[in-house]
Amino acid sequence: MDPLIYWVGMAAVAVSAVTGVLEAGRKPIDLFGMVLVALASALGGGTLRDVLLDRPAFWIADQTYLVCALMAGVMTFAVVRLLTLPRNLFLIPDAIGLALFTVVGTQIALLYEVPWLAATFLGVVTGVFGGVLRDMLSNEVPVVFSGELYGTAAWAGALLYVGLSAAGAAPGLAAGLAFACIVVVRLAAIRWRIMLPTFSSRQ
Amino acid sequence: MDPLIYWVGMAAVAVSAVTGVLEAGRKPIDLFGMVLVALASALGGGTLRDVLLDRPAFWIADQTYLVCALMAGVMTFAVVRLLTLPRNLFLIPDAIGLALFTVVGTQIALLYEVPWLAATFLGVVTGVFGGVLRDMLSNEVPVVFSGELYGTAAWAGALLYVGLSAAGAAPGLAAGLAFACIVVVRLAAIRWRIMLPTFSSRQ
Amino acid sequence: MDPLIYWVGMAAVAVSAVTGVLEAGRKPIDLFGMVLVALASALGGGTLRDVLLDRPAFWIADQTYLVCALMAGVMTFAVVRLLTLPRNLFLIPDAIGLALFTVVGTQIALLYEVPWLAATFLGVVTGVFGGVLRDMLSNEVPVVFSGELYGTAAWAGALLYVGLSAAGAAPGLAAGLAFACIVVVRLAAIRWRIMLPTFSSRQ
Repeated sequence: MDPLIYWVGMAAVAVSAVTGVLEAGRKPIDLFGMVLVALASALGGGTLRDVLLDRPAFWIADQTYLVCALMAGVMTFAVVRLLTLPRNLFLIPDAIGLALFTVVGTQIALLYEVPWLAATFLGVVTGVFGGVLRDMLSNEVPVVFSGELYGTAAWAGALLYVGLSAAGAAPGLAAGLAFACIVVVRLAAIRWRIMLPTFSSRQ
Repeated sequence: MDPLIYWVGMAAVAVSAVTGVLEAGRKPIDLFGMVLVALASALGGGTLRDVLLDRPAFWIADQTYLVCALMAGVMTFAVVRLLTLPRNLFLIPDAIGLALFTVVGTQIALLYEVPWLAATFLGVVTGVFGGVLRDMLSNEVPVVFSGELYGTAAWAGALLYVGLSAAGAAPGLAAGLAFACIVVVRLAAIRWRIMLPTFSSRQ
Repeated sequence: MDPLIYWVGMAAVAVSAVTGVLEAGRKPIDLFGMVLVALASALGGGTLRDVLLDRPAFWIADQTYLVCALMAGVMTFAVVRLLTLPRNLFLIPDAIGLALFTVVGTQIALLYEVPWLAATFLGVVTGVFGGVLRDMLSNEVPVVFSGELYGTAAWAGALLYVGLSAAGAAPGLAAGLAFACIVVVRLAAIRWRIMLPTFSSRQ
């Protein structure tokens, strides 16, 4: 596999383990629960992508990901207990993790010759599912359902990546622009409370 | 694959996307949430079947299903916003989707040489799991747990299909009779409130 | 496959179907719901392990497991309706099922040449996931999150198995010691209310 994809994925795993612990750390939770939330957050999205693609979960073939998630989780846990951190600190690494996972998930789907529309959905699944599991295990309403653009930001970035690739852009450039697109849209949506309009039928 | 199975599956996908939007449309939900519910409802059951059978999700190899679910969802959304629809309209397409998916799920399992009892369970999984996801995402109690015969109707139809096939019936005939069995049992169960008896032990 | 692993797995399936019915039997639940809970409890953990390992669910290739779970469930159901059973009887077979599944899950992962740390997590998944599904379907807080050592006991046993195997112990001996370790730790944790300390950061 392309080393760029490999290390981008590893960074996304570490960042997402950090967000898992930052969120779980606000609850009374025991050490095993903390490990569980960190692993679910870090590995959940890529695992669902691999299951849908019919290949073994990525952390089974290469347990470096598992070690990386555990170490990032434990280090964050130590820091969180020493320092008082701002309440919504986890929103920024969460946006970065969302962007990294969405881009790498879309790349892997295209490597497996998945058609373009399905590939963007696999990118979104990779991006959002770890956070959904993390929030469910922490008894929070999943951030993906909670208002500001989240899945929509991921989908926009995945579509941008597919479009740039089809237009012949270099892989690194397409990935960088798609990453920036997702982070900017997500953080702007949080900052200015941008949401999709909500509809309700007349039933 | 047999064109009959292919088009029956496509019809089930469209019908289930419709039921997803009809149910989600009664809640305040944004456009991304609507797409999510329509896709989960339309693709969830077949996806779980494929995962258990260890093959790639059916909408990855052939994204016609994905396009079909998206188009059926968007068209239903437009109709729902223009017309006032009766409250429980979605129960009838839901029964049809249940029947189509159960039959096609059982057929695919048998094509993969799954033993007969396991094949009927894969049929039931294909039939009910999309609706379970749809109801969970819409914050409803899943219809499969809510009283009138639902999973039981699907299982009866799957067993009928397996029995007729073993007895040498033509595939189209067996499929048609199993489909009719599920729709009739489900709609009769709704009409006359037929439920399995509920037990509770003396513990 | 090794007959020892095969029959240990079969025993774990039967025991877990029993715990499913014992727990579901305390609720008003219909016969189809009872079958569903018994199957989810008996087959859920091994199914998730197989999905992650990218092989077909074990009860699809060999439906003996399915028949075994159904028969154990129905027999327990009959007994539960005839006798008044002590309230927490299901905790002991649950500990046995946890131990059996964890050991067999770890063994199967190692057979598939999964690296050791990932293999212990697959063992824990096999051990706890059926119970998580059972408790969710019965509207109980999953026992794995509820205080006394549960997942931790399973992980300890899986690590012991991996360690003994690496040290050259006979497979039967390693499996027996790991099994005993999990049952003893779990039952001792229930008896003396042993829990991991709970942390909460200062956020």
